[in-house]
Amino acid sequence: MVKIRRTNRLIGLIKILSDHPGRLFPLSQFAEYFGTAKSTVSEDILSIREALEDFKLGTIETVTGAAGGIKFWPFPNEIQENQVLQDLAQRFSEAERILPGNYLYMSDVLYNPQLMRQVGEIFARRFLNDKPDYVMTVETKGIPLAIATAQVFDVPVVVVRRETRVTEGPTVNINYVSGSNRRISTMSVGKRSIAPNSRVLIVDDFMKAGATAKALVDLTKEIGAEVVGVGVVIATAEPQKKLCDGYETLFWLNEIEEESGKIVLEIAQEKSKSKKRK
Amino acid sequence: MVKIRRTNRLIGLIKILSDHPGRLFPLSQFAEYFGTAKSTVSEDILSIREALEDFKLGTIETVTGAAGGIKFWPFPNEIQENQVLQDLAQRFSEAERILPGNYLYMSDVLYNPQLMRQVGEIFARRFLNDKPDYVMTVETKGIPLAIATAQVFDVPVVVVRRETRVTEGPTVNINYVSGSNRRISTMSVGKRSIAPNSRVLIVDDFMKAGATAKALVDLTKEIGAEVVGVGVVIATAEPQKKLCDGYETLFWLNEIEEESGKIVLEIAQEKSKSKKRK
Repeated sequence: MVKIRRTNRLIGLIKILSDHPGRLFPLSQFAEYFGTAKSTVSEDILSIREALEDFKLGTIETVTGAAGGIKFWPFPNEIQENQVLQDLAQRFSEAERILPGNYLYMSDVLYNPQLMRQVGEIFARRFLNDKPDYVMTVETKGIPLAIATAQVFDVPVVVVRRETRVTEGPTVNINYVSGSNRRISTMSVGKRSIAPNSRVLIVDDFMKAGATAKALVDLTKEIGAEVVGVGVVIATAEPQKKLCDGYETLFWLNEIEEESGKIVLEIAQEKSKSKKRK
Repeated sequence: MVKIRRTNRLIGLIKILSDHPGRLFPLSQFAEYFGTAKSTVSEDILSIREALEDFKLGTIETVTGAAGGIKFWPFPNEIQENQVLQDLAQRFSEAERILPGNYLYMSDVLYNPQLMRQVGEIFARRFLNDKPDYVMTVETKGIPLAIATAQVFDVPVVVVRRETRVTEGPTVNINYVSGSNRRISTMSVGKRSIAPNSRVLIVDDFMKAGATAKALVDLTKEIGAEVVGVGVVIATAEPQKKLCDGYETLFWLNEIEEESGKIVLEIAQEKSKSKKRK
């Protein structure tokens, strides 16, 4: 391969890394790709790390050892994360979002890939130490969030269905009592979609009673996998006692009232705030 | 702002661009962000374009005029695109994917964010000239593909539901006869989720009779929007005459037979192949 100018190599490197967050790249792979020495790639990576940290666009983790290499993590810094959360809090507090029955209209935000990418990065940072093998959600509105989170971890998504589908092959199903209408509902997951003994991060858009999250936890156990975390975008302040505990939420919905058009929503304190930030 | 080294600026630039494909950035915005002259940013962009094109990682489009600027498009080149398609063709041809009733198991591919990102880029390139304002799909399996495609265009996703949901607010619903079981089904889309007179690109994972795609086309018209394209991952060769025409498919499924474990799948000829490649 023809020798490549440093500038071009740097541009190629950062593009490859930002397309594959969370993936382990041995330096030798880049050395081969760019036709250069490993030590040169090593210097390039130092420059990239410095620039990324200067602009707070992420960081590069070094994994030592024989199977070592580097991983790119696109975490927002504390200031950016607060900006994203404040922007979302403002959007979610718009009175016209209140739907009959005191539901909150969220689809425009949940189906916006750019916003979800940012939320996915926040989720990924919060659950980084939980090292999930899969990000799981239940159809439908949580899927873009699950995709965005899984993309940062470079892992697949598991979408749990609300009914058994022939296209999923053999499934594991559970019944549960839904929190809102107290009816028996079903959840179904394809057996092929998840390897036994794997680590599962559950994400969803909204939690009220916590019955859905609880059912996802039960279903995960049923297929022989382990739940390493539960994250939701919005949790209601009431009921305080949810059926699922140990979850992380980005926002608390304290009040929503159709008649007065009042929404009181606040950014939730990060549960793992005491843990060291990456 | 302190003056930033060129290397750092380049790294920052390419990271921002690759996080926001399809988005128009005025050069003045970068000049301000990096505290440098517009002419300097202009030179940086030239370097980035050159490097991207060298490595076939995408291209930079210049939009002239008062509201001008640059847009980054992460298109794979022809060779990469063929590699992606060949890899997918091989995966989809694995005999163990055949499910009872001659269905094809696709969830592991459809829920893999990295694979879908690549397919989304291929779709975006093929539909580039159609300039969609939204990417629409019907729940559930097409959602990651829709997200990936929409991300390249920097537009929102519209997820059509199979039943009316209170959390979508007022909806527009249609009934249609599903192709496979000849039953009357419903499709529902939130009126808020799509602006009138907008341009809609429909994507889905699979097309057999084309009844689902046809229903999505009808629903789009019903809400006063325009369908600018229909793209699917796999279409069956039979029936040749689909209820929806003018669609683009990545693969033809010519044969699938549970008993013999036989799958015959081929990469489809690009419909717009005669058009000039970007």
